[in-house]
Amino acid sequence: MAVETVASATDSPEAAETVDLGPATALSCRECSARFPLGPNFVCLECFGPLEVAYNLPSGDPEGLRKQIEAGPNNIWRYAPLLPVPADVATKPNLEPGFTKLIKADRLAAELGVTGGLWVKDDSGNPTHSFKDRVVAIAVEAARAFGFTTLSCSSTGNLAGAVGAAAVRAGLKSCVFIPHDLEPAKIITAAVYGGELVGIEGNYDDVNRFCSELIGDPAGEGWGFTNINLRPYYGEGSKTLAYEICEQLGWRLPDNLIIPIGSGSQLTKIDKGLQELIKLGLVEDKPYKIYGAQAKGCDPVSAAYKAGHDAIRPVKPDTIAKSIAIGNPADGPYVIDIARRTGGAVEDVTDPEIVDAIKLLARTEGVFAETAGGTTFAVLRKLLEAGVIDPAEETVAINTGDGLKTLDGLSDSTGLSATIRPTLDSFREAGLV
Amino acid sequence: MAVETVASATDSPEAAETVDLGPATALSCRECSARFPLGPNFVCLECFGPLEVAYNLPSGDPEGLRKQIEAGPNNIWRYAPLLPVPADVATKPNLEPGFTKLIKADRLAAELGVTGGLWVKDDSGNPTHSFKDRVVAIAVEAARAFGFTTLSCSSTGNLAGAVGAAAVRAGLKSCVFIPHDLEPAKIITAAVYGGELVGIEGNYDDVNRFCSELIGDPAGEGWGFTNINLRPYYGEGSKTLAYEICEQLGWRLPDNLIIPIGSGSQLTKIDKGLQELIKLGLVEDKPYKIYGAQAKGCDPVSAAYKAGHDAIRPVKPDTIAKSIAIGNPADGPYVIDIARRTGGAVEDVTDPEIVDAIKLLARTEGVFAETAGGTTFAVLRKLLEAGVIDPAEETVAINTGDGLKTLDGLSDSTGLSATIRPTLDSFREAGLV
Repeated sequence: MAVETVASATDSPEAAETVDLGPATALSCRECSARFPLGPNFVCLECFGPLEVAYNLPSGDPEGLRKQIEAGPNNIWRYAPLLPVPADVATKPNLEPGFTKLIKADRLAAELGVTGGLWVKDDSGNPTHSFKDRVVAIAVEAARAFGFTTLSCSSTGNLAGAVGAAAVRAGLKSCVFIPHDLEPAKIITAAVYGGELVGIEGNYDDVNRFCSELIGDPAGEGWGFTNINLRPYYGEGSKTLAYEICEQLGWRLPDNLIIPIGSGSQLTKIDKGLQELIKLGLVEDKPYKIYGAQAKGCDPVSAAYKAGHDAIRPVKPDTIAKSIAIGNPADGPYVIDIARRTGGAVEDVTDPEIVDAIKLLARTEGVFAETAGGTTFAVLRKLLEAGVIDPAEETVAINTGDGLKTLDGLSDSTGLSATIRPTLDSFREAGLV
Repeated sequence: MAVETVASATDSPEAAETVDLGPATALSCRECSARFPLGPNFVCLECFGPLEVAYNLPSGDPEGLRKQIEAGPNNIWRYAPLLPVPADVATKPNLEPGFTKLIKADRLAAELGVTGGLWVKDDSGNPTHSFKDRVVAIAVEAARAFGFTTLSCSSTGNLAGAVGAAAVRAGLKSCVFIPHDLEPAKIITAAVYGGELVGIEGNYDDVNRFCSELIGDPAGEGWGFTNINLRPYYGEGSKTLAYEICEQLGWRLPDNLIIPIGSGSQLTKIDKGLQELIKLGLVEDKPYKIYGAQAKGCDPVSAAYKAGHDAIRPVKPDTIAKSIAIGNPADGPYVIDIARRTGGAVEDVTDPEIVDAIKLLARTEGVFAETAGGTTFAVLRKLLEAGVIDPAEETVAINTGDGLKTLDGLSDSTGLSATIRPTLDSFREAGLV
């Protein structure tokens, strides 16, 4: 059994030269800045730090770039000049995620006492109803560029469906690995796209470990794992949340952003996107603060932030916010850096606070958030109440997915107002009007 | 207890004069053409026929109108000049439904042998993930125009959530009536928006009858029932599917449209929308054929069509396609008229055929359809196999909602490919690669 290193597949200069990922020029180590050719690699061979995509971004004509973007399609490909994708990406069959609604949340603002403007970036509007469609779409382009024929991932739900659907549209095979005891609804939602769906006897960490082993094995040859060997590209998809929020605000930065923390990748990439917009002159530079949201049942980043630590102590997750229940978040230290640098914070909330926030958002704005989204809005409320967020400032909070996918958390507290016989008398007796 | 007639609320000319519903000028009886002022009425006082909205539509400058539409928002309000809504409708808080994706379904076409072009109009992309958001949005404007403060409906699922969410965003109260024994997931999805949700001891017909009684009762004063006393306006929302399909095709008509039949309203209003586009010169006139899709477990329209009858014999529904399981469809006769006039047909399919079609669409296009959408695609397949639909013609099929809402139908046949231990040996033994 031949076990190859994870970096071997396209490590040769020849392979790298044939790769067209638009403005992406190399992989660069976040820790030691060592550079590597574009390839399906995610760990620095010098220092084992995480790799990220380096670019040669268009510069010098912000007005022209703004116009080019605004004339683009109503999906993430309007930002193709800023992403690791070929220029003709929009012409290839794909799910066309993104450009989801930025909702002016006036009723929620009134209820929370926000006077400076409050917005909900609602990523439940994506094709499979979570932000994962953004990141997977970029991973698909990397998979195509590297000649992979099977798209794979380890997942606890949202990602499995996003990978299954995206692979179908792109004409790739898919093989997705999940813990074998996931809820039946999540299994159906992932299996319906017809790719292979494999249950692993173990928890999410076991699934992840198995996938990392598979990457070095002949059985995994030709496979792109969105959140492992394609991770540097995949993560860049979250930058589009930053681009869209600023463009939808009229090409300007908000004062505050509240973002849920699973691995922490989304938060760090949104910050990266904002920095790019400033550097390119697409928005005027001004201070912004980034706040991270965790569930108390999985709060390693919040705990480290509050204790003043830089390192993250892993935890065993126990929360209804399962899509962000990552006990050992890879980007945790970077999240803490960003919260400190921007003057933001990291906060955590209990499961009942999450459920309350889901209901609050639903009854004020008609947006039904998944539990991760509930976490974000519960943290928003908590930080406003604590005086950490200034209600006179403009705030954007992100709903990363759809409440339809996480109904379990609500079943105890959400139901019928009354049950009546089909008569007017019975209705009046119920005392609802 | 005072029982008023359903037509009394704004039947006076004074009330009608204050109503601004844009190009809408009156209600007109579909049967006897009697005209009534715009108001919350749905039955002709002359002949008891159904009322529909009459317009004074913009004419004479199709190119200017096309430009105006294309410069409008990416939702149904781009068509405000053709809808019973005030001109400034887009500025009022609402869910902004519509302008969902029209997907070129090349992989599905290849599998079905379609060579003339096949498109999926995917209405799962609406805010609450079904086409109901379109019709409810129009009903909300009517409710506002008539001074209603509570939005109501009878529902078995999709409509309840659409009404609950739309009312919240519009700042209206809501009170929704459903059979008391609906699945818990549907109850949560409807209740989360915080309006009143009342379970009725009985089936959907009992719920409907109760709501009709409530309209004439003081307890229902100030209430707009989207699918009863606001029905003429509500129904018009389905015209936007016709507008969008033609605009997204580049302002032209397809050869064939496949549309699911519940009450039949959607199909008749799509035909109305196509006729308007032709009359206004927005598309070139040419023949098109409309096909209606039913589940065999609720096939009153299909049965009448096949028997050559004009009248519909009601049935007791028994199908997994619950959102179109209406045993006595109000618009059934009009559906048959349209199928005959356009050279289309009405066809029905079994529950297993519906499940197969859901999976077919998911594995070829990455679109997860609800059971009603599965019905549409199963009928498409059946009509192609029977030689009724010409594969060399261009066809558009509508997915009216999201598979996430109707998982039950799939639970027996959709699951894991394999369950393995987290080892490479165990994976190889599973024989998937």
